[in-house]
Amino acid sequence: MKNHRKKRSSKSGLPPGTPVHIGEQKLEIMSLRALIYSEHAFQEFQTDRVDEIVPLATNPTNKWITVQGIHHIEGLQQLGAAFGLHPLVVEDIVNTDQRPKIEDYGDYLFIVLKAVSRHDQGHSLMVEQVSLIVGGNFVLCFLEGNDDPFVSLRERLRSEKGRLRKTGSDYLTYAHLDTIVDQYFPLLEKIGEDIEELENRLIAQADRESLRTLHQFKREMILLRKAIWPLREVLSHLERGESPLIQSSTHIYLRDVYDHTIQLIETTETYRDMLGGMMDIYLTSLSNKLNETMKVLTVIATIFIPLTFIVGVYGMNFKVMPELEWPWGYPLVMGVMLFLAIGMLWSFRRKHWI
Amino acid sequence: MKNHRKKRSSKSGLPPGTPVHIGEQKLEIMSLRALIYSEHAFQEFQTDRVDEIVPLATNPTNKWITVQGIHHIEGLQQLGAAFGLHPLVVEDIVNTDQRPKIEDYGDYLFIVLKAVSRHDQGHSLMVEQVSLIVGGNFVLCFLEGNDDPFVSLRERLRSEKGRLRKTGSDYLTYAHLDTIVDQYFPLLEKIGEDIEELENRLIAQADRESLRTLHQFKREMILLRKAIWPLREVLSHLERGESPLIQSSTHIYLRDVYDHTIQLIETTETYRDMLGGMMDIYLTSLSNKLNETMKVLTVIATIFIPLTFIVGVYGMNFKVMPELEWPWGYPLVMGVMLFLAIGMLWSFRRKHWI
Amino acid sequence: MKNHRKKRSSKSGLPPGTPVHIGEQKLEIMSLRALIYSEHAFQEFQTDRVDEIVPLATNPTNKWITVQGIHHIEGLQQLGAAFGLHPLVVEDIVNTDQRPKIEDYGDYLFIVLKAVSRHDQGHSLMVEQVSLIVGGNFVLCFLEGNDDPFVSLRERLRSEKGRLRKTGSDYLTYAHLDTIVDQYFPLLEKIGEDIEELENRLIAQADRESLRTLHQFKREMILLRKAIWPLREVLSHLERGESPLIQSSTHIYLRDVYDHTIQLIETTETYRDMLGGMMDIYLTSLSNKLNETMKVLTVIATIFIPLTFIVGVYGMNFKVMPELEWPWGYPLVMGVMLFLAIGMLWSFRRKHWI
Amino acid sequence: MKNHRKKRSSKSGLPPGTPVHIGEQKLEIMSLRALIYSEHAFQEFQTDRVDEIVPLATNPTNKWITVQGIHHIEGLQQLGAAFGLHPLVVEDIVNTDQRPKIEDYGDYLFIVLKAVSRHDQGHSLMVEQVSLIVGGNFVLCFLEGNDDPFVSLRERLRSEKGRLRKTGSDYLTYAHLDTIVDQYFPLLEKIGEDIEELENRLIAQADRESLRTLHQFKREMILLRKAIWPLREVLSHLERGESPLIQSSTHIYLRDVYDHTIQLIETTETYRDMLGGMMDIYLTSLSNKLNETMKVLTVIATIFIPLTFIVGVYGMNFKVMPELEWPWGYPLVMGVMLFLAIGMLWSFRRKHWI
Amino acid sequence: MKNHRKKRSSKSGLPPGTPVHIGEQKLEIMSLRALIYSEHAFQEFQTDRVDEIVPLATNPTNKWITVQGIHHIEGLQQLGAAFGLHPLVVEDIVNTDQRPKIEDYGDYLFIVLKAVSRHDQGHSLMVEQVSLIVGGNFVLCFLEGNDDPFVSLRERLRSEKGRLRKTGSDYLTYAHLDTIVDQYFPLLEKIGEDIEELENRLIAQADRESLRTLHQFKREMILLRKAIWPLREVLSHLERGESPLIQSSTHIYLRDVYDHTIQLIETTETYRDMLGGMMDIYLTSLSNKLNETMKVLTVIATIFIPLTFIVGVYGMNFKVMPELEWPWGYPLVMGVMLFLAIGMLWSFRRKHWI
Repeated sequence: MKNHRKKRSSKSGLPPGTPVHIGEQKLEIMSLRALIYSEHAFQEFQTDRVDEIVPLATNPTNKWITVQGIHHIEGLQQLGAAFGLHPLVVEDIVNTDQRPKIEDYGDYLFIVLKAVSRHDQGHSLMVEQVSLIVGGNFVLCFLEGNDDPFVSLRERLRSEKGRLRKTGSDYLTYAHLDTIVDQYFPLLEKIGEDIEELENRLIAQADRESLRTLHQFKREMILLRKAIWPLREVLSHLERGESPLIQSSTHIYLRDVYDHTIQLIETTETYRDMLGGMMDIYLTSLSNKLNETMKVLTVIATIFIPLTFIVGVYGMNFKVMPELEWPWGYPLVMGVMLFLAIGMLWSFRRKHWI
Repeated sequence: MKNHRKKRSSKSGLPPGTPVHIGEQKLEIMSLRALIYSEHAFQEFQTDRVDEIVPLATNPTNKWITVQGIHHIEGLQQLGAAFGLHPLVVEDIVNTDQRPKIEDYGDYLFIVLKAVSRHDQGHSLMVEQVSLIVGGNFVLCFLEGNDDPFVSLRERLRSEKGRLRKTGSDYLTYAHLDTIVDQYFPLLEKIGEDIEELENRLIAQADRESLRTLHQFKREMILLRKAIWPLREVLSHLERGESPLIQSSTHIYLRDVYDHTIQLIETTETYRDMLGGMMDIYLTSLSNKLNETMKVLTVIATIFIPLTFIVGVYGMNFKVMPELEWPWGYPLVMGVMLFLAIGMLWSFRRKHWI
Repeated sequence: MKNHRKKRSSKSGLPPGTPVHIGEQKLEIMSLRALIYSEHAFQEFQTDRVDEIVPLATNPTNKWITVQGIHHIEGLQQLGAAFGLHPLVVEDIVNTDQRPKIEDYGDYLFIVLKAVSRHDQGHSLMVEQVSLIVGGNFVLCFLEGNDDPFVSLRERLRSEKGRLRKTGSDYLTYAHLDTIVDQYFPLLEKIGEDIEELENRLIAQADRESLRTLHQFKREMILLRKAIWPLREVLSHLERGESPLIQSSTHIYLRDVYDHTIQLIETTETYRDMLGGMMDIYLTSLSNKLNETMKVLTVIATIFIPLTFIVGVYGMNFKVMPELEWPWGYPLVMGVMLFLAIGMLWSFRRKHWI
Repeated sequence: MKNHRKKRSSKSGLPPGTPVHIGEQKLEIMSLRALIYSEHAFQEFQTDRVDEIVPLATNPTNKWITVQGIHHIEGLQQLGAAFGLHPLVVEDIVNTDQRPKIEDYGDYLFIVLKAVSRHDQGHSLMVEQVSLIVGGNFVLCFLEGNDDPFVSLRERLRSEKGRLRKTGSDYLTYAHLDTIVDQYFPLLEKIGEDIEELENRLIAQADRESLRTLHQFKREMILLRKAIWPLREVLSHLERGESPLIQSSTHIYLRDVYDHTIQLIETTETYRDMLGGMMDIYLTSLSNKLNETMKVLTVIATIFIPLTFIVGVYGMNFKVMPELEWPWGYPLVMGVMLFLAIGMLWSFRRKHWI
Repeated sequence: MKNHRKKRSSKSGLPPGTPVHIGEQKLEIMSLRALIYSEHAFQEFQTDRVDEIVPLATNPTNKWITVQGIHHIEGLQQLGAAFGLHPLVVEDIVNTDQRPKIEDYGDYLFIVLKAVSRHDQGHSLMVEQVSLIVGGNFVLCFLEGNDDPFVSLRERLRSEKGRLRKTGSDYLTYAHLDTIVDQYFPLLEKIGEDIEELENRLIAQADRESLRTLHQFKREMILLRKAIWPLREVLSHLERGESPLIQSSTHIYLRDVYDHTIQLIETTETYRDMLGGMMDIYLTSLSNKLNETMKVLTVIATIFIPLTFIVGVYGMNFKVMPELEWPWGYPLVMGVMLFLAIGMLWSFRRKHWI
C-alpha cells in the first residue's frame, strides 16, 4: 500500500485551508467512536456515519470522540464545521507530515502528537500522527489507522472509579499525552538494549554489517528526536497554564508528563552520544585490522626475503666459489639461515608483533 | 549570460541610497502587471511603461502590482517615488544579493524572499529574489525575471470566491509567503530522494564520483539554509503582530506558514546530519577497500615467499647436497610445499581473510 | 539480584499516580528511622512499622525521618497519606529512574537527588536515588537500600552544638544537599587520577585494552553528567528563594552548594574534553604504529629485493657469461652488493627511517 | 619595520589611563585634516600641528577631523583634553590591539573599527584600526597610517549636494561605518573566488601546497571573524537608538548597515563551513592515493610472485626432474605462466583494480 | 612540597563553614601588611601577628591589608571575626580549589581571582588564588604564598599623585582586577608565539614530540579558560553597578577591564581553534608519510620483482632452452631488463611518484 502514499508536493498551488490527505491511506472507511461521560453516567457508541456524531457538538456533557481514518476529507470537514474548527486545523489533521505542536485557537486547543512503534524485525519505526482537539467539554482524537494506543485509557474511563470520570476534558487530554509519552519508554529501552548489543559486537569485530546497523540506529534516532523534542514545547505551553481550558488542578499532572518528556529527550541524546562514539570504535577497529594485516606481511617478508637472498647467492654459477666445494657448506648455510630466522622471530616477539 | 552578472564590489564608494543592479540581468525590458480588486470588482492590465502604473498609487482600491525585470533602475525609482518608498528600499530591491528579511518602514513593510528552483539535470539550484512592498491597500511584488511563482495565486484572485478578494493586502501578502514556502517542499522532497539514493550507492561502492556528488549536496544545503533560515525571523516578526498593516484575522494564517517554515528548517537540518554521516561512510569505505587490498597482497606474499625460499634452497650449487641425489627428492619437496600452501590457506580461512 | 530489576516499561497503561517500584529491590524489609529535635531536645528511634511513624506527622517539633527500602509500596502510601503527599510524588519516589529535580507542591518541596559511588575494582558506578520531602517542620528522606550517605549528618544533629539543631527543616535540607554534592568531589578526583594515568599509558602504547578503558570512562562521564547537571537547576531554584519554606538565612548556604555544583559541572566538562582528546591520541598512535611497520617492511624489501635480483642474474644458465669465468667475479659481486646495501642503509638513516 | 612593533606586554604595571602606543609605527609624523561644514559653507585645511586644531573644539559648526599617525602620544593627549576625552579613551586609541567596540561616554561615543585589506600576492591580510569619536557637532577619526579608506567620503562632503552636508555628525558616523562595511564585500568576494579555485585544485590533486593554502585561508577567516563579528554589536547598539547623539532619521540608515554586517557574518560562516569540508576532501584524497599505490603494488606482486616461484621450481638441481628432460618443457612452462598472468589480470579487471 | 597538597576529599563529612586548607602550603608563617591611606596621609606596616591588624577594623580611614599564607586558619578566623566575615567566606579563602567568582554579602563583596604564571622551562602553569574582600573602607587581599602580583600597585599607592589615593576601596579593587587581567596578556603572547613555532615545526615534520607538545598546549588552554572565562561574569556583575560599594565614577574603569577580559577570552578561543587545526595537520602529515613510504616500497618492488622473474626464467635447468645457447643471449636479456627498468621509472615519474 506504500505506493498510495501521497506527498506534500501534491498540495502546491492550492489555496490555504484546502484539506488534502498527505500520507498513506491506512483504512478503507472512517470509523467514529463516542464516549459521553460524567461522574455517574457513561454512554458509548460506535458508527461510521458522521451525521450521528454531529448532534453531540451541542450536548453539554463531557465527551471523547475518536476518529479513525483521516483520509475521508468530507467527513472531517462536516465534523469540523459542527465543532467550529478553523479550516486550517482540518487541513493540518489530514496532513500527516506535521511535527508535534500545540496551537491555541481560543475556544479550543489543537495538539499534534506522534505515536511511534517498532516492527519486531528490522529497524523500521512506524510513525502515526495523533491529532487532538480539546474544547471545554469535548476531546476529539484523530487517528490515522486501526492502531489505537488509547485502548487502556478507554477501559479506565468505563470504570466509574478514578479521576477520569470526575474531571473534564483537560484531564482527559493529560491522559492522552501521558499515554503517548509512556509509550516511548519501552521503545527506547528496547533500542538501548540493541545499541549495547551492537557495541559489544563492534568491539569484538568490525564488519560491514555492523556499520549498516549502526547507520540504521542513527537514522532511527533522527526520527525519534523529531517526534520527541517538540513534545517539550507542547507540554511546557500547557503547563504554563496560559489557556483557560486547562484547570489548575491538572497542571501538576502536566508537569509530571513534562518531566517524563525531559527524561525521554535526555535518553535520546545519550544514545546519540553513544552511537557517535561507536563510529569511532568502528574506525579504530578498521585501523587495528590493517595494522594486524601489515604485521603478518612484514613478519613473513622480513624473515624470508633475506634468506631467499642467501640461497640465491649460492645459486650463482661463478666458476670460483670456494664455499660450494666445502663438504659442510650446505649444512653450514642452512644453520646460518636457521639462526637468522630465529633471531628475527625473537626480535619481533620483543616488539610484541607476534 | 553569466558574465553579465554584476557584483557587489562594483558598488563601493557610492553614497547610500544609490541603486545599482547587482546580479544577472534576466530580462531585456521591464514588464508590469496590475490587478485592482475588491470583493466584487476586478480589473487587470499589463504594460511595460511605469507611467501607466503611477496613477494607481493614489487609487484607494486594493491592488497588486507585479514588476518583472529589476535592472531598469529609472523605472523603479519612478515607481518608488510614486509609492513613497525610501531610497534604501529601492537600492535593496535591485541588489539581488539580499538575504530574506523584513523591514518595517511604518507606512509599509519591505519583505525580501528567495524563490529556489532546481534544474532537472545537475545539482545547480536557481535562486531568484522576490521583493514585496506591503502597504495599506497595495502589494508591490518585484521579480528578477520571467519565472513567476505566483501564477496560481493570480488565478485564485481572478475567481470571485475565496478569501483573497474579501480581504486586503495583508492576506495577499500571506498568500505570497505561503506560495514561496510551499514551493520548497517538492524541492526538498526531491533532494531527500536523491540523498537516499546516493547513500545506497555509497554503501555499495565508494568512488570519487560519489564524493563529488556528496560535496555538491552539501553546498546545496548551505544555499538552501541561507534561503530558508531567515524566513523564520520574517514570519515570526509578522506573526507577533507588531505592524498595524497586518490585521489580527491574518495572524492565524501567518502562524500556519511559520509552522511550515519550522518544518522546512528541520528537514534541512536532518539532511545536513545525514550528509555528515555519509562522509563517515565514505571514509570507512575507503578504509575497508585498503584493508581488502592489503589482505590480497598479504595472502599471496605469505604463501609464495616461503615456497620461493624452499625452491631457492634446492637451486643452490653446493657439491654436497644429499637430497638432490634422492630419486624421490623432487616429488617430496613439491609435496612439502603443497602441504605448506594448504596449511596457510586454511589458517587464512580461519582468520576470515579469504 | 540484577534480574529482579524492574523496568519502566512494566508501567505502561496504568493510570497516573499508581506507584510501581522500578529498579532493583535492595532490601527485604522497609526500615524507618525518626529523629525528633529542637534546639535543646533530641529523640531518636528506629522501627520497621509505618504505624509508629504516622503519629509524628501532626507533631509540631522538627523531625527528620529516613526511610530505607522503597519497594514496600503500601508502607509508602500510608506514609504519604499521613504527610499529605500527592500520589504522583509517591509514584516518583518508588521509581528510581528519575532524574534529579525539584518540584514545589506549595506545602512541601519534593527533591530527587542521585548518590553516586564507585566500586573499587572495575568502572561500574553505583547510582542510588535519594528523594527528599521538605515540609515546614519535617524532612522525609527516602533511600533505596542500606547505604546511608547521611551518617555523619545524623551524628552532627545528635550533638547539641552547631547550626543544625537551632534551625529548621530548610537548613537540614541544605545539609542533605551539601552532603550529596560533597560526595562527588572524591569520586571525581579519583576518576581524574585514573584518566591521567590512562593518558600516560596511551601515549606510551595504544593497545585495545586502553581503548576499552577509554570507552568506559566516556560512559562513566555520561552517567555522571546526568546525575550532576540537573543539580544546578535544583539548587538555583532553591537559592532564588521562591519557596516560603526556605528562610532567607539559608540562601547564603544554598549559594555555596550551588557554587560547588558549578565546579563539579566544570570538572566533568574538562574530563570530557580530555577524553575526547585521548581518542585523537589513540588514533594517531595507531597511525604511527602502521608507519613504523611499513618502514620496517620497506627497509627490508628495498635492501634485499635488488640484491636478490643481482644474485639471480648470476644464477642464469647462459652459455656465454664472461663474468662467471673471472676468478675475482664472486668476491667482486659480493663486494658490489655489500656496497649497495650500505648505501641504502645510509640513505634510510638520512631519511630518519632507521 | 616589523621589529618596531610594540607589544601589549610592555604595558603591564602602568596605571590605567597611561597611553602607550601598541602596534607598528606606520608614520613618522602626525598629520591632521579638518573639514568644517554646514549645509552651505565648507572649509578644509591640513596641518601637522595639534595647536591649530584645538581651537575648533569650541567652534559650534559641524566638523570632521582626521588624525593620521597615532603614535604621537602627546599630540593625542592634547587633542583629547581639548575635546574632553577620558584618559581611557586616549589609551585605547593608541592601542591597536583593540577589538571593534562601541562605548557610550554620555557626551560622545567612542567607536573602534577595523579596516582590512589584502596584499595582492600571498595571503597576508593588513588590519588597520580606525577609531571614531562622535560628539554633538564633531567626528574625530584616528587612522594608524597613510591609507585612508574615507577618500570618497571626503569627496562627497566637499560637493554641496547629498545628505551629508545637510545632516550632522550622526549621519557622518553612519557614512564612516558604511564605508568600512562596504570595504569588506570585495575582499570577501575575492577570498570566495580563491576558495573555490582551491577546492577545484584539491579535488584534482592533493599536494602539501594545497594543504598549506587551505590552512592559510583558515587563519584568514579567524582574523576576519574577529574584525567582523563585533561590528554586529556596535551597529545594533547604535540602531537601538539609546544614545541621544544619534537622531532617529539616521536609524533607518544604521539598520541598513546592520543588515550588511549580518550578510558579511553569514558569508564568513559559509566560507568556514566550506573550508572545513575541504579538509575532509583532502583527507579522503590522501586515502585514495594510498589505495591507488597499494593497488599497483598488489597487482605487480600478485602476478609476479607466483610466477617467480614457478621458475624457481625448475631452477632446482634435483637429479631426477623428468620435466627438465622433455623437449617441450620450457615452452610449456612459459605457456602456463602466460596463462596464469592473463588470468590474474582478468580477475583484477573484474575487481576494477586496473 | 607537592605531597603536602591537601585535597578536597579531606573535607567530606565536615559541617559547612569549617575552614580546611585545601592546596599546597606555600609559606611557613602568615605575613600581614597594612597600608592605611587617605589623600594626604599614608601609613604602612608589616607584621606576622593578627592581633596587630584587628584594631584597624574599626578605623574609619581607607586601608588595604594583604595577607600572605592562607594555611594559618586560626589567624584567618580571627581576622574574619574582626571584619565581620561569614564563616563560609573564610572557608572559601582557604580552599584554593575555587573558581573565579564574586559574591555580594551586603556589607562587603567577596571576589576570587586566579593569578597564572608560567615557568620558563616546560609547560607547567602556576596558578595562585587571590581572594579579595571589599568593604566600604577596606580591601583585604589574601595570597597563597610569597609571590605578590601587586608590588607596583603598592608603589603607586605610596606616591601621593594618581587617582588611587584620592579614591576609596572600589577604585583600589578595580586596580587589583586590572593588575590580574593585565598579567594574562604577556602570558598569552608568549603562548601564542610558542603555538606558532610549533605549527611551523608540525608542517615541516610530524614527530611524536610535537604531538606531546600540542597536547600540553591543549591542557594549558583548558586551565587558562577555567581561570579567564569566569572573570567575565565577575566584571559584568561589578560593572552593572548593583552593589552600593562601587561608586559610579569607577564603572567606566571596570568597563575597561571587562573589555580586556573579552579580549583575553577571544584570544584563548582563537588559540583553541588553532590547536584544533594543528591536530588535523598532524594527522594529514602522518598520512603523507605513510604515502611516501608506500611509494618507495612500490617503486622498488614494481621495478625489481618482474626483473627477478626474468632472471629466474633463465636460471631454469631445462635441457632445451635455445636462448641459453645464443652468444648474445646474456647481453640481450640484460638490455631488455634495462629497457624495462627505464620504462617503469619513466612511468613513475609521469605519475609524480619519484
